[in-house]
Amino acid sequence: MCGIIGVYDVPEASKYVTLGMHTLQHRGQEGAGILSKCSHSDSIHSHKGYGSVASIFGNEQIMNQSLPGEMSIGHVRYSTTGGTGEKNIQPLFCDLDFGQFAVAHNGNLTNAKEIRQNLIEMGSIFQTTTDTENISHIIAHTEKSKTPVNRLIETLKKIKGAFSIISFVNNSMIIARDPNGFRPLCFGKFNNGYAVASEPCALEMIGSTDIRDVEPGEVIVLNDSEILSISADEIGWKTKHKFCIFEYIYFSRPDSVINNKLVYQVRKNIGQQLAIESAIDCDMIVPVPDSGVPVALGYAQHTAIPFEMGITRSHYKGRTFIQPEQKIRNLGVKLKHSPMSLMKNKSVTLVDDSIVRGTTSKKIIQMVRDAGAKEVHLRIGSPPTVGPCYYGIDTPHRKELLASDHSVEEIRKYIGADTLDYLSIDGLYKSVENGKCSGYCDACFTLDYI
Amino acid sequence: MCGIIGVYDVPEASKYVTLGMHTLQHRGQEGAGILSKCSHSDSIHSHKGYGSVASIFGNEQIMNQSLPGEMSIGHVRYSTTGGTGEKNIQPLFCDLDFGQFAVAHNGNLTNAKEIRQNLIEMGSIFQTTTDTENISHIIAHTEKSKTPVNRLIETLKKIKGAFSIISFVNNSMIIARDPNGFRPLCFGKFNNGYAVASEPCALEMIGSTDIRDVEPGEVIVLNDSEILSISADEIGWKTKHKFCIFEYIYFSRPDSVINNKLVYQVRKNIGQQLAIESAIDCDMIVPVPDSGVPVALGYAQHTAIPFEMGITRSHYKGRTFIQPEQKIRNLGVKLKHSPMSLMKNKSVTLVDDSIVRGTTSKKIIQMVRDAGAKEVHLRIGSPPTVGPCYYGIDTPHRKELLASDHSVEEIRKYIGADTLDYLSIDGLYKSVENGKCSGYCDACFTLDYI
Amino acid sequence: MCGIIGVYDVPEASKYVTLGMHTLQHRGQEGAGILSKCSHSDSIHSHKGYGSVASIFGNEQIMNQSLPGEMSIGHVRYSTTGGTGEKNIQPLFCDLDFGQFAVAHNGNLTNAKEIRQNLIEMGSIFQTTTDTENISHIIAHTEKSKTPVNRLIETLKKIKGAFSIISFVNNSMIIARDPNGFRPLCFGKFNNGYAVASEPCALEMIGSTDIRDVEPGEVIVLNDSEILSISADEIGWKTKHKFCIFEYIYFSRPDSVINNKLVYQVRKNIGQQLAIESAIDCDMIVPVPDSGVPVALGYAQHTAIPFEMGITRSHYKGRTFIQPEQKIRNLGVKLKHSPMSLMKNKSVTLVDDSIVRGTTSKKIIQMVRDAGAKEVHLRIGSPPTVGPCYYGIDTPHRKELLASDHSVEEIRKYIGADTLDYLSIDGLYKSVENGKCSGYCDACFTLDYI
Amino acid sequence: MCGIIGVYDVPEASKYVTLGMHTLQHRGQEGAGILSKCSHSDSIHSHKGYGSVASIFGNEQIMNQSLPGEMSIGHVRYSTTGGTGEKNIQPLFCDLDFGQFAVAHNGNLTNAKEIRQNLIEMGSIFQTTTDTENISHIIAHTEKSKTPVNRLIETLKKIKGAFSIISFVNNSMIIARDPNGFRPLCFGKFNNGYAVASEPCALEMIGSTDIRDVEPGEVIVLNDSEILSISADEIGWKTKHKFCIFEYIYFSRPDSVINNKLVYQVRKNIGQQLAIESAIDCDMIVPVPDSGVPVALGYAQHTAIPFEMGITRSHYKGRTFIQPEQKIRNLGVKLKHSPMSLMKNKSVTLVDDSIVRGTTSKKIIQMVRDAGAKEVHLRIGSPPTVGPCYYGIDTPHRKELLASDHSVEEIRKYIGADTLDYLSIDGLYKSVENGKCSGYCDACFTLDYI
Repeated sequence: MCGIIGVYDVPEASKYVTLGMHTLQHRGQEGAGILSKCSHSDSIHSHKGYGSVASIFGNEQIMNQSLPGEMSIGHVRYSTTGGTGEKNIQPLFCDLDFGQFAVAHNGNLTNAKEIRQNLIEMGSIFQTTTDTENISHIIAHTEKSKTPVNRLIETLKKIKGAFSIISFVNNSMIIARDPNGFRPLCFGKFNNGYAVASEPCALEMIGSTDIRDVEPGEVIVLNDSEILSISADEIGWKTKHKFCIFEYIYFSRPDSVINNKLVYQVRKNIGQQLAIESAIDCDMIVPVPDSGVPVALGYAQHTAIPFEMGITRSHYKGRTFIQPEQKIRNLGVKLKHSPMSLMKNKSVTLVDDSIVRGTTSKKIIQMVRDAGAKEVHLRIGSPPTVGPCYYGIDTPHRKELLASDHSVEEIRKYIGADTLDYLSIDGLYKSVENGKCSGYCDACFTLDYI
Repeated sequence: MCGIIGVYDVPEASKYVTLGMHTLQHRGQEGAGILSKCSHSDSIHSHKGYGSVASIFGNEQIMNQSLPGEMSIGHVRYSTTGGTGEKNIQPLFCDLDFGQFAVAHNGNLTNAKEIRQNLIEMGSIFQTTTDTENISHIIAHTEKSKTPVNRLIETLKKIKGAFSIISFVNNSMIIARDPNGFRPLCFGKFNNGYAVASEPCALEMIGSTDIRDVEPGEVIVLNDSEILSISADEIGWKTKHKFCIFEYIYFSRPDSVINNKLVYQVRKNIGQQLAIESAIDCDMIVPVPDSGVPVALGYAQHTAIPFEMGITRSHYKGRTFIQPEQKIRNLGVKLKHSPMSLMKNKSVTLVDDSIVRGTTSKKIIQMVRDAGAKEVHLRIGSPPTVGPCYYGIDTPHRKELLASDHSVEEIRKYIGADTLDYLSIDGLYKSVENGKCSGYCDACFTLDYI
Repeated sequence: MCGIIGVYDVPEASKYVTLGMHTLQHRGQEGAGILSKCSHSDSIHSHKGYGSVASIFGNEQIMNQSLPGEMSIGHVRYSTTGGTGEKNIQPLFCDLDFGQFAVAHNGNLTNAKEIRQNLIEMGSIFQTTTDTENISHIIAHTEKSKTPVNRLIETLKKIKGAFSIISFVNNSMIIARDPNGFRPLCFGKFNNGYAVASEPCALEMIGSTDIRDVEPGEVIVLNDSEILSISADEIGWKTKHKFCIFEYIYFSRPDSVINNKLVYQVRKNIGQQLAIESAIDCDMIVPVPDSGVPVALGYAQHTAIPFEMGITRSHYKGRTFIQPEQKIRNLGVKLKHSPMSLMKNKSVTLVDDSIVRGTTSKKIIQMVRDAGAKEVHLRIGSPPTVGPCYYGIDTPHRKELLASDHSVEEIRKYIGADTLDYLSIDGLYKSVENGKCSGYCDACFTLDYI
Repeated sequence: MCGIIGVYDVPEASKYVTLGMHTLQHRGQEGAGILSKCSHSDSIHSHKGYGSVASIFGNEQIMNQSLPGEMSIGHVRYSTTGGTGEKNIQPLFCDLDFGQFAVAHNGNLTNAKEIRQNLIEMGSIFQTTTDTENISHIIAHTEKSKTPVNRLIETLKKIKGAFSIISFVNNSMIIARDPNGFRPLCFGKFNNGYAVASEPCALEMIGSTDIRDVEPGEVIVLNDSEILSISADEIGWKTKHKFCIFEYIYFSRPDSVINNKLVYQVRKNIGQQLAIESAIDCDMIVPVPDSGVPVALGYAQHTAIPFEMGITRSHYKGRTFIQPEQKIRNLGVKLKHSPMSLMKNKSVTLVDDSIVRGTTSKKIIQMVRDAGAKEVHLRIGSPPTVGPCYYGIDTPHRKELLASDHSVEEIRKYIGADTLDYLSIDGLYKSVENGKCSGYCDACFTLDYI
């Protein structure tokens, strides 16, 4: 999971990119980078770092002096896989025979390892351990007689898996989404130019208009003078929509509208459906914040049981914290979640979006019991997560997924809940798409990989 | 507004102080500082900076090497008043004739200006522009024949206004709260030592036990071997409880228990009372996040109108952001709040905790109308704010307070709401204290200054 | 030993101060600081750091943005005595009852300890461990009814020892030299304003004209409109010239003209006199660089023995180097001095300015022998150093001074020379002043302290 | 011009590399970098920066934590050609199909441009603008079936021009010098391992023994267990010695012994020969420091005219200085050189090593006249510089070389000397090699490029 954003043909482009990256911060908090370029100049400006967007780009000097130009792309990075070192922070850029090339990428390439191996055998020198760098090396090896745009398209045809991409090819910005459309990408007008981002909330925030999804397999070329959309058909791609259903469940911001559906509303639907499937009587419905809130609201509205914000979430980043060596493990999850005394002597239904390893759920349930709750039920707004994701989500290996080899009852015992229920896969599709179940990737629930 | 925390006689004290400061981050996001000291050494270690606790203390090297010792105090700073420069960031420390003295202070001294003027006339050299530095200079001038503890008590008797204080006097930690108890301060056991903080949520998070309020006018002296509580009576202070009622309305974290009352519950009571006083029919109740959430929940539960999280808040800090020069003013408050499309064609009641200048309310209402709401009502969980605070809150001058010279109807017109209602002062006391109205400072609503 | 410089009433004053500080770098390489001020503004700008002038002030941004104004003072710091921490780096500044006060000081105060103790007893809070801070606190306690200039003069009358001072008193610059004139200080016109510095080479470099020594006991007041010189008589000081004779031997730059004498020429005189007193036949004269070079030249010219630069000096700063733990001690002084093979099978006379602990001489002689010299004689251009300096030089305690309790023959054996001779005290005065021996402090050679 | 150094199979190798880099600082002051590696580990550690060795590697933390291991190479960088950005600072390193490869390079490749163009056409992505990066890309494209060492040798056979190289090939260190031996490189034993550096002074300083020149065309392979020297013959190179004669005139440190000749002695020979060819009567001989000193000494000893250090040199780096905008140009060269008053009313012969653009000579002569000299003669210890260098010296374009299109008389008039003489090319060879004139590159004087 990562977030990308680009602004084209707008003065001070990098400032708007930074603004939008604040809105995409939930998609990656490990690091971030921005490139910018004046359309009349050959040099690409770059600033990258580890940490939050605010900490990296909060310096006035950097913003006013280091990132000039009318075209800019930004990237927020979720995980540290791919190894340490700022060189792994995107966007990547390099000089090629035709000029500058830069790329920001959201998603995972499934054939990255073999491509990299081949390229190294052919004498390519990799500077990062990202799968994204493959794109730079492949385009460097494409036929020189073609146009740069065609060389990029040829490159995209060689990679497999999930990719939403924003790139610089000299003074053009080229935007692309893989033919399965695994990851979201949306596009709009902005001032006299254009803007593109992983989620519409980022575009809305900066004031972009005419926002639409980039279609699976679509490539958009922005030049000084024109905008050109190339369809999957023209490229020769056969599209098969496989939008990641977890974007609705967890990743995307509730105020994003993706495929014409407001994420917040989908989550409320999930809560309502969850209540239909497995409601239990209790004194209060308490969400595990932040992602559990709309699910719990939908659940509470359906059941008419009081909704309470009984757990406070600290907006503090675990990664950047230094733990005392002694007994900090006992402090555990309190760093992020603290339960309130209003649950004392009450029966409580907790509502969360998903269970991955189960450790967080186990700790929260214990904390709620410590706060005095007499019953703790847990309801989950998605089916059991039984398989890892190969398309861009940093999920653990299969054996670390609690549900991959434990029954619901075993999980219930492990996490210590009085009762536990998951949403059914049918219930999920009812919530998302009125029951229509094609067009999504749900492999983490069904093991039905493409 | 600021937050303070101290840990005494616990190995790696500064790490627990840092942890607690994350929990107090809502009380001050402009800057932060930590002092630490080994009880067997004479040197005080210090690290300070501008920005969030995570950005200042997120560096592993700093935490492992720069702040050793068993005693530590920390401070989060709310405002930049007092002038720029890291020297103004607390805690302050200095060498005096009896040894080291350090102090972290929450609250405003009302006689700071005249004391400072007198001290300068007497030849004292101030290194900061904080009112807190007065404390260091006064104790430096007290009678050398007294014990350091008595000299600090003598010092406290010379300052007026609001002060919750944690200090080092050589190897002792001394904790004090002014005789009116304007600002909160609570105390507990921690491991084999002690901990103290502005709010109990910080103590609970690190695992402190036996948590109680420090009494107004109480001074607590912690030594290697003993703990000594000195009451206001013994000091010669006449106490008159004047706890800041705004702590319940806005400042304190919802999961803090102050004067045996859970802040979250008080806010829900406020919402319920607000509904009793001025509910209006509509399609949905929408809080202005984050402080409006429990008020709106209480309001919604009383009226049985659906509660919706219709406005998303970005956890982004305005101060650290670099604004494009052109049209960023139009982006306005969208940086922090973005409304959802689910309000389209609906009549909406927004619920917020208070109105200060009115500019934020005006922008949010406009945004909600832009999102398609057909009616926008606003309900405020406190009486009109008519007077500034002299005891530690960075409120604007009286003439900048919208309610100081405008009627409710004038305010409604200015902010563009269809209807506007505030909670009554009686309603406030019903919510906080079952109608008992003594023991609080409510001067910002009543102009009844001490 | 330190160096100071000031520029008054010249645009971009701090840039000229920085230039001059490069020329004074030999007087202090541990740290440096600059203050600047616009004459129409109340705020003092400051930048300080550890390291060389180039490393602290080599940043374009700092110089163009951080140090504006028409008045500026700078300080290079020799030793780290006074404790660590940037707060000890001069110039110091503070706000007093009459406005801003700042001071840069070269020299040591002999009554600093007792004054500090008294001030602390009276309630003053010290922020540094420098003796210079006494000056700020004393002026803060002087009578408020007097003018700031008179208050500074009153202050200077209370301190004893060595002081060459450049200070800001609001928009005035005040320059002063103690009535003994221990440390050098010179003054000149510069553009339409003035400049002042420890040594004339710094003033010449920036293009100052009409350069003269500030007289012992003289105070110069620079105001917008006028320049006022106050003599020692007017102040009530009885002057007794005690210029540090070591400035001629070692401290000052060879191209400085002090008391109308070119330092380089004085050193050559010393070499000639040394040859008259104790020349010995040999194959070559080799200076210990850098300070031994002019002495060796004078010696060689008198004896007509070939002068050779047989030892190369690295311009590398010992302090900033990280030493391998294992056998770096064996590398020893090679870091700074490396001898050449041209000394092989030759008899060599080394010439140096002085011997302090003797460890460096011992190592260099060993190195020269390792390079193959068959005889190594050492000639020293000053008498044996038998006493420490209390007026501003960071000499070791008496017992660490090799000559304080060892005869010349004992020293010769210790350092391993074939022969060793020092210049006589009479020979020194012949070289400096044609034999006139009043007007200098030579206590380190004679124990004749004031 | 650059300097390189390597240490192999010695604990804390990077600390010795740093020490040696201080000694090589005269070969490059713009930037520096160090790589290190534990022989049992796969990761290469790197630290680089702009500025002096002391400023980049003076930080204790960096030295103790960032550069572990028993093998290390360092590079000091002379010029900023090749573009800005730390990525251009050597040593370079990358991962290849056989493992890690790193390289530090002194010299210029004459076929770099065409190789780079070919590699880019073949799809290689360059990350720097150095010619050194070609080496990494060429080795990446060599035949996989060969050993890494043979692949490096094959690579070296494809590059032309000047190269002294120290490289890592996994756990081996490979050292190479081009078959013309343009740039110096010497090798020795060190503790239980080995050391290699551009000049022997760096090896002597750290205590290396058995120091010898690496032969032109020699490749030395260091492995855990063995040392292997491969001769030019074995490689298939035809050697033709073309050692840069300017190393004797200006670049190398005077205490370096290169080709069994002490650089200091060669420079004294040059001075003597210069006196034989063109001595003129005068009152004193004054060197332009630092490089003119031994030449002037040889000249003075031959003529028996007094030698005086009449010009003081500031050890201040021009690059790092911030110039006041107004009249700094008038200050001009005074920043580096200041003349002394002892030249007043004297006839002076200045001695310098070479004239490039002539601007410095012109300024110095004017300064000496301003200091009162009645006659100023200039003698140059090399023939007129008529051609640029293509083998590693950052000389200006031909048309900027004063001597390329001006006669000696025209130059004399331009720089304002009373008389001007250069050393003859025959005189130069008499000084260096007793008149033997083969084995050197003197193209900058003769235009006789290889």
